[in-house]
Amino acid sequence: MEHHENDRKIVGLAPSRNLSFYGRDIISVRQFARDDLAYIFGVASEMRSIVRRLGATDLLKGHILANLFYEPSTRTSSSFIAAMARLGGSIIPIHGVQYSSVSKGESLPDTIRTLECYADVIVLRHPEVGASEVAARYASKPIISAGDGVGEHPTQGLLDVFTILSELGRLDGLHVAMVGDLKNGRTVHSLTRLLRLYDVHFSYVSPDILRLPDEVKDEMTEAGRTFEETERVEDVIADADVLYVTRVQKERFADLREYEAVKDYYEITPELMARAKEQMAVMHPLPRVGEIHYDVDDDPRAAYFRQMENGMYIRMALLAAVLGKA
Amino acid sequence: MEHHENDRKIVGLAPSRNLSFYGRDIISVRQFARDDLAYIFGVASEMRSIVRRLGATDLLKGHILANLFYEPSTRTSSSFIAAMARLGGSIIPIHGVQYSSVSKGESLPDTIRTLECYADVIVLRHPEVGASEVAARYASKPIISAGDGVGEHPTQGLLDVFTILSELGRLDGLHVAMVGDLKNGRTVHSLTRLLRLYDVHFSYVSPDILRLPDEVKDEMTEAGRTFEETERVEDVIADADVLYVTRVQKERFADLREYEAVKDYYEITPELMARAKEQMAVMHPLPRVGEIHYDVDDDPRAAYFRQMENGMYIRMALLAAVLGKA
Amino acid sequence: MEHHENDRKIVGLAPSRNLSFYGRDIISVRQFARDDLAYIFGVASEMRSIVRRLGATDLLKGHILANLFYEPSTRTSSSFIAAMARLGGSIIPIHGVQYSSVSKGESLPDTIRTLECYADVIVLRHPEVGASEVAARYASKPIISAGDGVGEHPTQGLLDVFTILSELGRLDGLHVAMVGDLKNGRTVHSLTRLLRLYDVHFSYVSPDILRLPDEVKDEMTEAGRTFEETERVEDVIADADVLYVTRVQKERFADLREYEAVKDYYEITPELMARAKEQMAVMHPLPRVGEIHYDVDDDPRAAYFRQMENGMYIRMALLAAVLGKA
Repeated sequence: MEHHENDRKIVGLAPSRNLSFYGRDIISVRQFARDDLAYIFGVASEMRSIVRRLGATDLLKGHILANLFYEPSTRTSSSFIAAMARLGGSIIPIHGVQYSSVSKGESLPDTIRTLECYADVIVLRHPEVGASEVAARYASKPIISAGDGVGEHPTQGLLDVFTILSELGRLDGLHVAMVGDLKNGRTVHSLTRLLRLYDVHFSYVSPDILRLPDEVKDEMTEAGRTFEETERVEDVIADADVLYVTRVQKERFADLREYEAVKDYYEITPELMARAKEQMAVMHPLPRVGEIHYDVDDDPRAAYFRQMENGMYIRMALLAAVLGKA
Repeated sequence: MEHHENDRKIVGLAPSRNLSFYGRDIISVRQFARDDLAYIFGVASEMRSIVRRLGATDLLKGHILANLFYEPSTRTSSSFIAAMARLGGSIIPIHGVQYSSVSKGESLPDTIRTLECYADVIVLRHPEVGASEVAARYASKPIISAGDGVGEHPTQGLLDVFTILSELGRLDGLHVAMVGDLKNGRTVHSLTRLLRLYDVHFSYVSPDILRLPDEVKDEMTEAGRTFEETERVEDVIADADVLYVTRVQKERFADLREYEAVKDYYEITPELMARAKEQMAVMHPLPRVGEIHYDVDDDPRAAYFRQMENGMYIRMALLAAVLGKA
Repeated sequence: MEHHENDRKIVGLAPSRNLSFYGRDIISVRQFARDDLAYIFGVASEMRSIVRRLGATDLLKGHILANLFYEPSTRTSSSFIAAMARLGGSIIPIHGVQYSSVSKGESLPDTIRTLECYADVIVLRHPEVGASEVAARYASKPIISAGDGVGEHPTQGLLDVFTILSELGRLDGLHVAMVGDLKNGRTVHSLTRLLRLYDVHFSYVSPDILRLPDEVKDEMTEAGRTFEETERVEDVIADADVLYVTRVQKERFADLREYEAVKDYYEITPELMARAKEQMAVMHPLPRVGEIHYDVDDDPRAAYFRQMENGMYIRMALLAAVLGKA
């Protein structure tokens, strides 16, 4: 895999030494200030160099992660498993819980309190909004949310911002265009909320019925961020430093005719990319089902697989941080 | 997590040095004498101090556990995975076997003989009574039963006795009250059979239709143990040193009307606990679905989460013992 | 477990030192020449002595295997997990993918390119012929096929040849009889194709409707190999050095009446074995459902469980080789 030149740039970031993540839960993008992000990105950047030079470290040897997934997410669970393994730690994989004894009518707090008897840190994916917060309230060990319902997906937000920083070397002064289902995509909400901490100008590109909720737009305005809305990628492609493309998720539509009408609304093609800046980044949380043409994959600006890889480094950083080993 | 003061007391137990568990199967509570239990509890107690001081050890580095679960049991499988991981060993997790190729009409002995080509020890959970014994007969590597049908669940019995010892510092002379479904609960049968080795007085508290089977009561009488039966927790709460509460398991009832009639029979509440001894232990194998009120959780006598944790130490002790590394 | 005397013989094989498997994919038995096999068997043989003497090694410490199974195969997946664990590496187990987010309409190349962001090597089991080749084309990390549809199952073929060599000390000059469903069994096709590299005489024993496909027979003839076909094991039992028995797989039959007619066609019994050579090997890829009587298991010529064990050593050898650590 080729690595992008800009990877190195963020090594220079001085992590704030007085921050402590030891024992903290990671349940919302709202819990981070710029200093926190600088610290996490600094550690993630170190993790990246460790993995590239050595493959792995023994930093979390003897530590156990319980990977508790109440709904399947191979991508996210694999990323956490890889992160823990590359830190030398062990994993209790608990996937497909809906079919298992954990769900014999047991409450989430009881399950969490049981698992923390065995593990040192718990990663939780849950279909219900707020589940991570409930878990964190009852747990004495750190909880890291791997997404709860249409709510938060904080580690996705962090890896997205880390990727922008890695690709472009900075965050302030960028023009970030978000494309696709901006109404239902928790990824988009988490990312835009994190980016409000920086001097970023936004373009929100979506079909009319899939616009960013007013609530999120209001937060941006309050934070002093500027944005415009459009239905056409063509309007923003020439100016964007980041084109963040998302899938229109069938499972979010009650009316399937609405889904059919918008599902193929956007496709990023080489022709479109020809009109984009020479230095910019196309991102996607993956899986994609047609939003980005395969012929874009070889474009050096196609950052989505580096984005995946960064997910592992961010999760390594978070695991090490909450276990006091960063 | 807070730790109970009495944890330390059993460290003083001198394990019988001439006992060898190396290469043995763990398939029934009937295979243990008092000396065996003293040895296992001594090792489990050492495991507890290792985990608390260091998190883990390398005792079983390079060893592999095959965790073969023919029916789901997240709690038990996670406990074994954590135990093996904290000993530095590796795990082959084989869960949900009913859907897998292992079940392409293959016999249990063939599956076991295949897995022992890969692993050094096999943990087996199976829906049929006696499956562990069959597995042990064909295996040349040690088999540890993680429960077979309504039959035995020896590691649960061991962790229960270890918890009583850890909480109260002794076993002889105690008054142990068992509450709930005493007819179908294999946990209760395993525990009561192990405790017959000690000078324990029993109270069996259950609705009339869920009484302890005569067969088990006869074994107690033969072993010289005394007991009484009642339908009311109120009759025993003031005198009991241990209140062992179990869930009424819906899946054991053919007639669901019977289940409905008894399912909410018992609930341990703070009011009830106000009438209990100052030093005693409330235990439950978990999951609970209402038998113990959440407000009891903060009572220092609520031992059920420490009981979960002890399960990991007992399983660490057994794994190390049967692999000759205790 | 007892080990066969001949295990030692192949240690003498001088592996060709100038071959490099580093970074290569393992997707077809057709990719191997005799030199390649000599090299792999030499490494597998070393792996066997390491495991017998030490249990495990740290050769792949810090390396991660993604075990990506789109259809269940407990036996094969467990073998790879054990192989990686005994090499000191870590595993991302991805089983039952059909229910998971990987399959949210995502293409195989995208899944592979995502996983190689986390892992150093990917083992792929897939229901479609040619899937491994597609995966290998898109991956920058090594792909090892664990079987794709009715197509190839190269690691099974390799472990089978390695077992023959281990049991009989040589490959040239042997008489190998294959018994059962020779039409549909990919195991048989892979094995017979690998053995064409050696001076082997074949007997193909099957019911008329389950004969070896002409295409495979033509390949044997072209390679200068001789063979005969028969319906009766009795015709070959006295002369065979290897009796390779396979299951008639119900799932391959469109017409279940045809399956019923042939499913119990063969059963290797002690009576039959009484007529076989004193030094020969009975093999089976397992699971068996009646093709070999349980009373044959204690016969020293029954090699099928040693064959299972050899699978782990072959997979250790391949993992180490493609990661450049053999």
